[in-house]
Amino acid sequence: MLESPKFDSLEGRSHEDEEAIYGLNDQTVQQIREFLDDNKNDEIRQKIGALHSADIADLIEHLKPKHRSKLLDIADDLIEPEVYSDLDDTVREDLVDEMETAEIAELVNELELDDAIDVLDDLEKDEQQDVLKELPAENRMVIEEGLSYHEDTAGRLMQRDLVAVPDYWDIGQTIDYLREADGLPGDFYEIFVVDPRHHPIGTLRLDHAMRSRPNVPVSDVMHREQKLIPVSMDQEEVAYLFQQYRLASAAVVNNSGALIGMITVDDIVDVISEEAEEDILRLGGVSEDDLFGSILETTRTRFTWLLVNLFTAILASVAISLFDATMEKVIALAVLMPIVASMGGNAGTQTLTVAVRAIATRELTASNMFGILRKEAIVAFLNGCMFAVLIGLVSWAWFGDGDIGWVIALAMVVNMVVAGVAGMVIPITLERYEIDPAIASSVFVTTITDIIGFVAFLGIASMVLL
Amino acid sequence: MLESPKFDSLEGRSHEDEEAIYGLNDQTVQQIREFLDDNKNDEIRQKIGALHSADIADLIEHLKPKHRSKLLDIADDLIEPEVYSDLDDTVREDLVDEMETAEIAELVNELELDDAIDVLDDLEKDEQQDVLKELPAENRMVIEEGLSYHEDTAGRLMQRDLVAVPDYWDIGQTIDYLREADGLPGDFYEIFVVDPRHHPIGTLRLDHAMRSRPNVPVSDVMHREQKLIPVSMDQEEVAYLFQQYRLASAAVVNNSGALIGMITVDDIVDVISEEAEEDILRLGGVSEDDLFGSILETTRTRFTWLLVNLFTAILASVAISLFDATMEKVIALAVLMPIVASMGGNAGTQTLTVAVRAIATRELTASNMFGILRKEAIVAFLNGCMFAVLIGLVSWAWFGDGDIGWVIALAMVVNMVVAGVAGMVIPITLERYEIDPAIASSVFVTTITDIIGFVAFLGIASMVLL
Repeated sequence: MLESPKFDSLEGRSHEDEEAIYGLNDQTVQQIREFLDDNKNDEIRQKIGALHSADIADLIEHLKPKHRSKLLDIADDLIEPEVYSDLDDTVREDLVDEMETAEIAELVNELELDDAIDVLDDLEKDEQQDVLKELPAENRMVIEEGLSYHEDTAGRLMQRDLVAVPDYWDIGQTIDYLREADGLPGDFYEIFVVDPRHHPIGTLRLDHAMRSRPNVPVSDVMHREQKLIPVSMDQEEVAYLFQQYRLASAAVVNNSGALIGMITVDDIVDVISEEAEEDILRLGGVSEDDLFGSILETTRTRFTWLLVNLFTAILASVAISLFDATMEKVIALAVLMPIVASMGGNAGTQTLTVAVRAIATRELTASNMFGILRKEAIVAFLNGCMFAVLIGLVSWAWFGDGDIGWVIALAMVVNMVVAGVAGMVIPITLERYEIDPAIASSVFVTTITDIIGFVAFLGIASMVLL
Repeated sequence: MLESPKFDSLEGRSHEDEEAIYGLNDQTVQQIREFLDDNKNDEIRQKIGALHSADIADLIEHLKPKHRSKLLDIADDLIEPEVYSDLDDTVREDLVDEMETAEIAELVNELELDDAIDVLDDLEKDEQQDVLKELPAENRMVIEEGLSYHEDTAGRLMQRDLVAVPDYWDIGQTIDYLREADGLPGDFYEIFVVDPRHHPIGTLRLDHAMRSRPNVPVSDVMHREQKLIPVSMDQEEVAYLFQQYRLASAAVVNNSGALIGMITVDDIVDVISEEAEEDILRLGGVSEDDLFGSILETTRTRFTWLLVNLFTAILASVAISLFDATMEKVIALAVLMPIVASMGGNAGTQTLTVAVRAIATRELTASNMFGILRKEAIVAFLNGCMFAVLIGLVSWAWFGDGDIGWVIALAMVVNMVVAGVAGMVIPITLERYEIDPAIASSVFVTTITDIIGFVAFLGIASMVLL
């Protein structure tokens, strides 16, 4: 009888230890770094041989470029093509840049279609052509077709290998076919049932097929209801379909409706992570994941967003400068001024975060936007009133001037309501004009809350106090 | 021959139209609202009957509470239990709150285990007991066991129904068992192979099983390498395993290593969305998804974060007040002062966003943190220098005073470097003390960049200009 070694190693471990069981741990990385420095090639090969390809990818990401090249020299044969699929795009591009054309062709040839296309897509046009020339004709055709689909569409996500059977077959014929056919996909959950034009008409889940007698017709067991994915559908839309209808796999069809590929839920897991990551980074003012980017690249991509922010900050300063005479007379205004702007900025960010997320998950649409906008305005007003009282009392106590308390309280209510409304209206408007709300909302909202914050406070002050 | 109606409706559609094909569209929502107002019950029932359960859930979320109750009265029998699984938690809680104990019991009884537990978990302790009492004994036991696992652990995610076969069976026996057994799970991708103690020793993919001859022993076809999931593992960890090793399903084991359930990749899709959503909302200062929350609830949850921000804003004002004499003499300082703080805040937010995300995806760990911190500091310095030149020239031109230009330039470099370092060090430190970096990083970072921004600028000014 066989024992599972993994299970035994689990026994008696506490919850804290669990993290160490799976994935790459820092000690391993450290050890391999030392081995690399000391040229202990056998030890390195032994360590690498014991790691899962996904963990080898993590290891490579964690190493310095110098160590990466050394590792590839020493353990090249142990590093399977899948490692390249799992690598961060930036790191993979760096590695591929150092390869000869023939090496790239060999790698591309061994990768799964979607990964092969990713690698080729990163190359310069000439180099891409050179690599394509080195590929076997059949593979080359498939890859060229893949490259012809737009990035981030179903065409790029799908795999071409799938199992399709005619609807007049029975389960027995299907099983015989599976046992004898070559070139079937590595993993699949469903068999597609097609008509003579190769149009999908239903799907046969493997578990349902296995539980049916051999003489049952496929068309009796298949599900007729299926979500077909046009090859040009955006990957975000594809991910939505998989989530909304809990799909395990789905057929991809071309413009004339013929079955040309399939997408499985494990590909979607990556898309969902990517799309969520994109939203998180964009909301934080980062255009792309640059953790592994070079210093110059990272500096450049961050610069753009900061430049926009410099412009809006200067705009806010111009607004302040309108009231310099007022501030000169009552310097307490200069001291308190950032509070109203900061609270507005935070309240606005709260609302816009909820809005951006709800737009992405389609919880916020044209049909409920007015109700939700009304709610946000009331919430903003209620919180505005509470914080008005708080900051009014603090300011009064601090500067011993009741008027300053009133002024800041009033400005607070105004700016909080503006923040709540802008935080909802701006992402909705951007979405309507097909601008990604995640990328642009926060600069608009904070510019508005800064300027309104300063102008409301200093403006009311110059009317009341002077 | 059968025609797929879905395919025909796709033909000739442009990319823009695709969005309308799947999911709920705003026109349908609007129409149902009107039907509800006009008491057109037959039309409502017809519309609902044509919708997928996931789309009915979206519809209910989009309606006002008054319309929701009315819809449930009219079309109760058309609303399958799955609709409740797909509903937003807040909305589901509202609906369940209005049900009688017997109705809740009926719903719980029909739901899948994880959803049944979710519904029960939201109830008050007494009501939970009342509902449990109404359940059939067998179901009750399973649910009570489920409730005993911590929220957000593998125990809550897993389903109990799975297919396990002994390793001495052959493929033929396995297929016969599948054809005859009752109570098999609705959907499954893998069969678990267990030893006599019911410990998992391998997995048999359905596609591999189907492609093998009946007389082949299961142990010849099964994969021995598998990732076992302890029942107490955190769901974030489970999602990491599925993503890292591209799992389709995995066995869940209890403390003594026996197979007690399985988790499939489609459950993980939801976990990944949830965890990413949590990070996005927390980074935006929102503690939970409150789109469908009541006005008072939303006001309350937003208040906490804003209160923290009020405190830090006052702290920044106190810092400014140290330099009120300086500002009174050179009012240009009050005008320019928010720029340095704002640029620091944005640069800090960029870095902390990258750091929080990289910690969540485990790209940033102890083993590469010093390298990345060094890089961020250099990036911050480079951008700091560029923006120092820009803002220095702008300020010089604006106020015709070269000294003000020098002062703001110097303060900009200081604050940008502080921002870059704090944006990286703070999330890493919070993570080390097991505080979620997404929830607390941004308040720390912006407090630091505000205070350093004001103090550096006004402090250098009071030395240079006075």
